[in-house]
Amino acid sequence: MEGDPTRIMLAVNESTIKGYPHASISSRKAFEWTLQKIVRSNTSGFKLLFLHAQVPDEDGFDDMDSVYASPEDFKNLRNRDRARGLHLLEFFVERCHAIGVGCEAWIKKGDPKEVICHEVKRVHPDFLVVGCRGLGPFQRVFVGTVSEFCVKHAECPVITIKRSAEESPQDPVDD
Amino acid sequence: MEGDPTRIMLAVNESTIKGYPHASISSRKAFEWTLQKIVRSNTSGFKLLFLHAQVPDEDGFDDMDSVYASPEDFKNLRNRDRARGLHLLEFFVERCHAIGVGCEAWIKKGDPKEVICHEVKRVHPDFLVVGCRGLGPFQRVFVGTVSEFCVKHAECPVITIKRSAEESPQDPVDD
Repeated sequence: MEGDPTRIMLAVNESTIKGYPHASISSRKAFEWTLQKIVRSNTSGFKLLFLHAQVPDEDGFDDMDSVYASPEDFKNLRNRDRARGLHLLEFFVERCHAIGVGCEAWIKKGDPKEVICHEVKRVHPDFLVVGCRGLGPFQRVFVGTVSEFCVKHAECPVITIKRSAEESPQDPVDD
Repeated sequence: MEGDPTRIMLAVNESTIKGYPHASISSRKAFEWTLQKIVRSNTSGFKLLFLHAQVPDEDGFDDMDSVYASPEDFKNLRNRDRARGLHLLEFFVERCHAIGVGCEAWIKKGDPKEVICHEVKRVHPDFLVVGCRGLGPFQRVFVGTVSEFCVKHAECPVITIKRSAEESPQDPVDD
């Protein structure tokens, strides 16, 4: 007999390809990993909470108060808005809907690492899943990583899903 | 339709109370968390791999080649051996058996952080769960933590389960 579903927060972001508003390879990898390895066939045992932290100077979507939980929630959006951060959420919400996993998705503006830790504090997920590009030690020094910050500072358990080498694009900007 | 079970490695250790060969509070916490939040009712979807890394100068058990997968595997041990590292494994194996989750448990000698990362490399779990005492920043500087090392170096995703404050004994040596 199962109690409340396990609430898993997934921090998701867009591909960094300019004008290509789709989920990054690492976000999709973290999502697929969560479905395959954790949720498995127990779709009613879990609820996925998708948070897209949007950096403030991005030319993004402005509605910071809506929560999206089913594909219908995206229907009445203007085309202009669909092309931005929301397109990202729609991808994850549709996938969840198709396989029957409950979900919620929303956007917050701010520095991703700060936003994620703040939302963890507010929403109290059971744990947080963060994708990660798997940068080499040299790249890591200059880039810093959101995942490392969250592992240290988020007030819930955090699991970092690294991409495997063959999933990394040649140019890191294509991630 | 489910494929092979998700293989979760749990690094477990003993209480540091002298002569008290039971699972530490943080090991038990990490184990219970895994059952409650990940395995839930899907007992056939997961297999738990318990690794007890035993520091070499501990007055411990010497059989480093056996794998224990059911309560019967502990029956023919001499009392002397039962009182040591194996008692710890028996606790976890019996719990798994009672609720119907497949498991394997074994002991390796060595520096726990090195042993854990080495076994991850050998056994390829889907992810690793490590308990953690939740030391304050001051304590952490002097103690270092196994969990931090594993997060950085283990070749699989790692989730660290911190004890909550009310579960911490007054004296850290009682952990």
